[in-house]
Amino acid sequence: MSAVIAFQGEVGAYGEMAARAHFGPAATLVACPTFEAVFVAVESGQAEAGLIPIENSLAGSIHQNYDLLLAHPLHIIGEQPLRVSHCLVAHPYATVGELTTVFSHPQALAQCARFLRQHPHLATQATANTAASVRAVRESGRRDHAAIASRRAAEAFGMAVLAEAIEDDPANFTRFLALARTPGQPGEHAKTSLVFSINHQPGALFKALSVFALRDIDLTKIESRPLVGKPWEYLFYVDILGARAEPRVQRALDHLAEYALMVRVLGSYPRYTP
Amino acid sequence: MSAVIAFQGEVGAYGEMAARAHFGPAATLVACPTFEAVFVAVESGQAEAGLIPIENSLAGSIHQNYDLLLAHPLHIIGEQPLRVSHCLVAHPYATVGELTTVFSHPQALAQCARFLRQHPHLATQATANTAASVRAVRESGRRDHAAIASRRAAEAFGMAVLAEAIEDDPANFTRFLALARTPGQPGEHAKTSLVFSINHQPGALFKALSVFALRDIDLTKIESRPLVGKPWEYLFYVDILGARAEPRVQRALDHLAEYALMVRVLGSYPRYTP
Repeated sequence: MSAVIAFQGEVGAYGEMAARAHFGPAATLVACPTFEAVFVAVESGQAEAGLIPIENSLAGSIHQNYDLLLAHPLHIIGEQPLRVSHCLVAHPYATVGELTTVFSHPQALAQCARFLRQHPHLATQATANTAASVRAVRESGRRDHAAIASRRAAEAFGMAVLAEAIEDDPANFTRFLALARTPGQPGEHAKTSLVFSINHQPGALFKALSVFALRDIDLTKIESRPLVGKPWEYLFYVDILGARAEPRVQRALDHLAEYALMVRVLGSYPRYTP
Repeated sequence: MSAVIAFQGEVGAYGEMAARAHFGPAATLVACPTFEAVFVAVESGQAEAGLIPIENSLAGSIHQNYDLLLAHPLHIIGEQPLRVSHCLVAHPYATVGELTTVFSHPQALAQCARFLRQHPHLATQATANTAASVRAVRESGRRDHAAIASRRAAEAFGMAVLAEAIEDDPANFTRFLALARTPGQPGEHAKTSLVFSINHQPGALFKALSVFALRDIDLTKIESRPLVGKPWEYLFYVDILGARAEPRVQRALDHLAEYALMVRVLGSYPRYTP
């Protein structure tokens, strides 16, 4: 039996593409309506693993998913970057000239602003997500309606791609994290993601980072997040190179615990390599 | 004559509320269709200042606006946090029981997931932004349609608020930045925002942060952003307490320039105090 993997969205969503890229052709992918539903599906055992987006190169980190990582006892077991490339999707045989309206998620419409300016005859209309826009155009049966979505969404609904890579900025990547109930096998080239909080005093972060610098442990991500209602307490999201089980990483984490109010290791997992 | 201030969105948008809170009742607020249009309005002199969102406590930093800050020669002259609190908005005399469909931006719909689960008779439909959803409901004339938006948007369109603070997480804040062509007066309690890039070597960030720690300069934000296509080069967004003109800040920035590939000060401005 193939592994059951939960992702957020629907068939043709970027989340599905990332899940397929990460878990391979044999996995059974199950769509969930919300990010929280992905966590619940994995926690309850309905799915063996799940995939959630954690940051986008244009839109930033998804704090909401860090909150869910802290609230649920799951482990990060892998990472998967996905290039987000938008297509103009319409009915087979439709042409750009006969289109009147383009449907998509507001963020996808905004990411294709230049293309839309170059085609001023196109009105835009918002949808809940990119895959839903293809479904809506398909179901309307209207040749003058188009969607902005992935090539995969076009294929899933038997629709045509009229234009490809229409986003303004080709450096549009989303990083996804794979989650499971038990820790994974990080292997030799590992990354570890952690969250910690410290009291906000001058130099406090510098001390906290010294636990890694003094052991030549490399950081690949750092991000502060002020705690609303607690102006003197900060959360930090940090990714380091190395696995939790390595003695120097273990010592660094012990050392960090001396300064920090809270340290939570979200998981050690193989570093993505193309 | 009152100052002309550019913001992104439309009347009733959260951007308008933040602009009003920051620039006061006398300012003339001008709506721009995109964030870039705000920068262009200020640069060209059409507006004396502009306001853009830079980070949200749930959705994270808006990298796109950091990109625009680097691409345009404007200065940050102020900061303005805004509590994002959503209302259910409908026609006067409409009741929740007779509603069938709720319109809003997909992110606002997602932020009110609990309220929508408690009212399962309500279908949802996406719009380009929250203020546009109120306008659409107003123009439809349908008593069974509602929008999720700010109280200000309801008032702007003469609509009724059926329920208030319907968002799942009350800790929903957006931080806006005020921009102008010339540097502002940061005053005594100043913040300085900067962007720098460093080569990605173990300990490089630690060295870069030492220039502040060694001078007891406090950080209120730090965020790394990998440069797509340059896996060994990172951008860092940092906010520090202190003004650029203070000698210890100036010395820290000079010291930082010894390690960094690039340092750009985005502005010194008064720290927000409620």
